Amino acid sequence: MELKEDERIDQLYANDIKIIQSSKVFSFSLDAVLLAHFAEPTKKENGKVVDLCAGNGAVGLFLTSKTKASIAAVEIQPKLAEMAKRSVKLNSLEQQVTVLNLDLNDSLKYLKKDSFDTVTCNPPYFSDLPTSKKNPNPYLALARHEITVTLAQTIEMSSALLKTKGKAYFVHRPDRLFEIFECMQKNRLAPKKVQLVYPKEGREANMVLVEAIKDGRKGGLRFLPPITVYQANDEYTPEMRGILYGTAG
Amino acid sequence: MELKEDERIDQLYANDIKIIQSSKVFSFSLDAVLLAHFAEPTKKENGKVVDLCAGNGAVGLFLTSKTKASIAAVEIQPKLAEMAKRSVKLNSLEQQVTVLNLDLNDSLKYLKKDSFDTVTCNPPYFSDLPTSKKNPNPYLALARHEITVTLAQTIEMSSALLKTKGKAYFVHRPDRLFEIFECMQKNRLAPKKVQLVYPKEGREANMVLVEAIKDGRKGGLRFLPPITVYQANDEYTPEMRGILYGTAG
Repeated sequence: MELKEDERIDQLYANDIKIIQSSKVFSFSLDAVLLAHFAEPTKKENGKVVDLCAGNGAVGLFLTSKTKASIAAVEIQPKLAEMAKRSVKLNSLEQQVTVLNLDLNDSLKYLKKDSFDTVTCNPPYFSDLPTSKKNPNPYLALARHEITVTLAQTIEMSSALLKTKGKAYFVHRPDRLFEIFECMQKNRLAPKKVQLVYPKEGREANMVLVEAIKDGRKGGLRFLPPITVYQANDEYTPEMRGILYGTAG
Repeated sequence: MELKEDERIDQLYANDIKIIQSSKVFSFSLDAVLLAHFAEPTKKENGKVVDLCAGNGAVGLFLTSKTKASIAAVEIQPKLAEMAKRSVKLNSLEQQVTVLNLDLNDSLKYLKKDSFDTVTCNPPYFSDLPTSKKNPNPYLALARHEITVTLAQTIEMSSALLKTKGKAYFVHRPDRLFEIFECMQKNRLAPKKVQLVYPKEGREANMVLVEAIKDGRKGGLRFLPPITVYQANDEYTPEMRGILYGTAG
């Protein structure tokens, strides 16, 4: 496998997946690891999973340890989609994972409506306001700010792709949780499970994971045990080590 | 102070408040302690605080350690309001705390609209559905089920009583958090802070505390560090001991 000069290979030890990373273009981070850990993709071998805002393909690749279903990874940026394709090859997962380099808003031209069992999405977190400070690196700006896609569009497309009773999994910032709930409700998605992620004991949550069911009954929202990432000494907590390395030790 | 035969006096050691309790009628519980701990009542000496669904007055009494403002406690059940009045006397807090035995929905006949700095409310948690199993004890049924007042009514009245920029504090079940957010939004209350309470490590949250600001700007929701009540050995966590006894030791 040839790497470009700014690239490196990172490994998620918990499931032996190797991912081509580039700090110049895009690196997957804890958000992707936690989203893949939180998601419960369909167990059906002939099931269908789609990962939206796929970046370098990390979430779709991590999910292969949890399901035999086919996985489509949708990413708008050609450079990132190309990295994702090479990572799929690197892990010999071409039979299971397909990378689609396309605008999420055009997904229905290539993917069938109401046909997916599971959607995962790690969307850009920040609104694209005229006042918002954006990264001068355009790859990172697109990944972090709602420039090519808004939260509402990711939720709308997730619902369009899902079958009835299919499940959507999102990772986002807690300050937008109410907006996420509202958008989901408008798009036939019933929020069912929430898991908050805290950087350290005594600190406020900085990430939230949400599971929603298409055409699910309203109400009955559950808050799973919280995840704390770091111990007071800045080492990962045993729980987080388990998620990253497959062992708490 | 004379007690009736089914009554006892419980003390919250953290602030030396004594409360008349009765397992036959109503006992305050952790919910009230955590609501009073979470709330940040106005610091103004001439400020005004109201506690809705006051029960035996625990929340209003606990708040006296945090504010010199006047506190009105609104409770519909005559027996409970009468217990609350005796607890106010027992703590010699008649100058600060007034107990009003009235239906929350009639509050505006006795309390001035748009005049309160802080509202606290520990409403009945469970919907009054024809199918819901209610406690055969009518005192406890009223306190637990939305028989005399609904969640929407408590939120509507909280907003009516609050000044612009006044703050409302609610404790409720996490499964109704989205409904709480929606109701608040309809009633000019912007949710600003959420704190989840977990019974034990590895368990789902069973309580949620919410702060909202009247006419506050939408967005910017914060999730405070979670509270865990019990350790694995079923003793209170050091944090919870601090809240209950004023010392973690």
